Amino acid sequence: MEFSKGHGTENDFVILPDPDVRLDLTPGRVAALCDRRRGLGADGVLRVVRAGALLGAGVLAELPAGVDADDWFMDYRNADGSIAEMCGNGVRVFAHYLASRGLDPRSEFVVGSRAGARPVQVHTAGPVNGEITVDMGVVGYLGESATTIGGRTCPGIGIDVGNPHLACVDPALTGESLAALDLGTPGFDPGFFPQGVNIEILTPLVSGGVDMRVYERGVGETRSCGTGTVAAAAAALRHSGDDDGVVRVRIPGGEVEVRIESGRARLRGPSVLVATGTVSDGWWNTLG
Amino acid sequence: MEFSKGHGTENDFVILPDPDVRLDLTPGRVAALCDRRRGLGADGVLRVVRAGALLGAGVLAELPAGVDADDWFMDYRNADGSIAEMCGNGVRVFAHYLASRGLDPRSEFVVGSRAGARPVQVHTAGPVNGEITVDMGVVGYLGESATTIGGRTCPGIGIDVGNPHLACVDPALTGESLAALDLGTPGFDPGFFPQGVNIEILTPLVSGGVDMRVYERGVGETRSCGTGTVAAAAAALRHSGDDDGVVRVRIPGGEVEVRIESGRARLRGPSVLVATGTVSDGWWNTLG
Repeated sequence: MEFSKGHGTENDFVILPDPDVRLDLTPGRVAALCDRRRGLGADGVLRVVRAGALLGAGVLAELPAGVDADDWFMDYRNADGSIAEMCGNGVRVFAHYLASRGLDPRSEFVVGSRAGARPVQVHTAGPVNGEITVDMGVVGYLGESATTIGGRTCPGIGIDVGNPHLACVDPALTGESLAALDLGTPGFDPGFFPQGVNIEILTPLVSGGVDMRVYERGVGETRSCGTGTVAAAAAALRHSGDDDGVVRVRIPGGEVEVRIESGRARLRGPSVLVATGTVSDGWWNTLG
Repeated sequence: MEFSKGHGTENDFVILPDPDVRLDLTPGRVAALCDRRRGLGADGVLRVVRAGALLGAGVLAELPAGVDADDWFMDYRNADGSIAEMCGNGVRVFAHYLASRGLDPRSEFVVGSRAGARPVQVHTAGPVNGEITVDMGVVGYLGESATTIGGRTCPGIGIDVGNPHLACVDPALTGESLAALDLGTPGFDPGFFPQGVNIEILTPLVSGGVDMRVYERGVGETRSCGTGTVAAAAAALRHSGDDDGVVRVRIPGGEVEVRIESGRARLRGPSVLVATGTVSDGWWNTLG
């Protein structure tokens, strides 16, 4: 079984090309592959396949909104083997892989996901480094709420980017003091977010940029979260009195650029393809 | 750059065949390669090379005790890029790799390490699964000391297996209660262990087996530690009034067998080779 390993701002993935849907991605196999000691290790798996092939194999019951059978489809699995709708960093790595491996020569095309079509623009796609913009769709504003960090309350805005976020601008924070912050387990209002929420804490917008840390629902603090950077940019702009604008978001895993125009967000950032190889069939086939 | 990824009881390694010592394993490159998000991810790197080639290239200043120029040499690097003398789980994976890839047809040979020669015996060496015994050398007994876990003091024995261990048998523990224990950061007597110490906490010997957890110096709790299983077996035997014997040591990452005869320890256990591939030169060459 062929694989590649790559990351987008240190959100890392095992990429599995599977044009004929031969792989049986059971939760147990995905979890073993993503196990950082027993397997290859990753935050998730990106199966590379056309949407129509997944439909034909019965992995998809129907084509998601805006996705054609001929479109590439990012069949995303979380490290625990469960299915995820979308992953903003994953789409960049997915598109970079397609372009750098010669699987798609176009500079603009659609990547299908369970959350719908995600148009991408390939700026550069070298064998190792790529730069990709992903259309992340409409940003939904859910109203005001707050998080508690270390006993202190910080107001923020609820934002829907396909998944729920609570993005909190703290005017007292600088990049340095944010990095030094003991995040702990940030609190939130479960009445406002009954399904839980991803929490971003960030500095105010200065010279077009913010520093951000993110606490992902069900995971804990991570080095990057694609939808989280979009939520942070939207909150930073609102905090400055704007709806639209361009924000450079600095996260522990790197830096991305979020452009919000007429309520629609595009996320531009790097992708790195580190290695390519073969998973031993004798190992894969023994997994449940 | 060719690599394989494997593990011994979930202590995992990137294996780099480098017969002509072409790789410049700077600490920065090793750390990037072992980074679990930016790189491939591993507890350490095993460079596969003959001892004489390393000597010729100036990586070794002299051949360690008992190591011939024609012997294979496990050039081990920790995940932070620093050099380590030895790694008991690493030697198993190293020998399995040599045997399964047809690099050494013998069932018994010597693996050189900076701590000296480590004779190995290859029981099985399939493409994925192997079973290897490593001669871990003489077990040194350093006398009695104690650890503190959660405010409770547990007596143990200081044991030298090339590195210092404090192995503590707690007669009150069962496999279940050991697994449920809040290990925290176990305390030790810095007067007794001025260089720090690896700490094992284990159940008493029952039906030839013990359950063990290990807290590695400078790392924290790990799923396995080769020298730690030897120290645990020695302490379990002493606790039963024996110097020699055979102990099955169950650790979070699996199970190994330690045989102590006339004060010398042999460690037998599994090795798994998961994947093989190529690290992108364009990535590797940009690393410091």
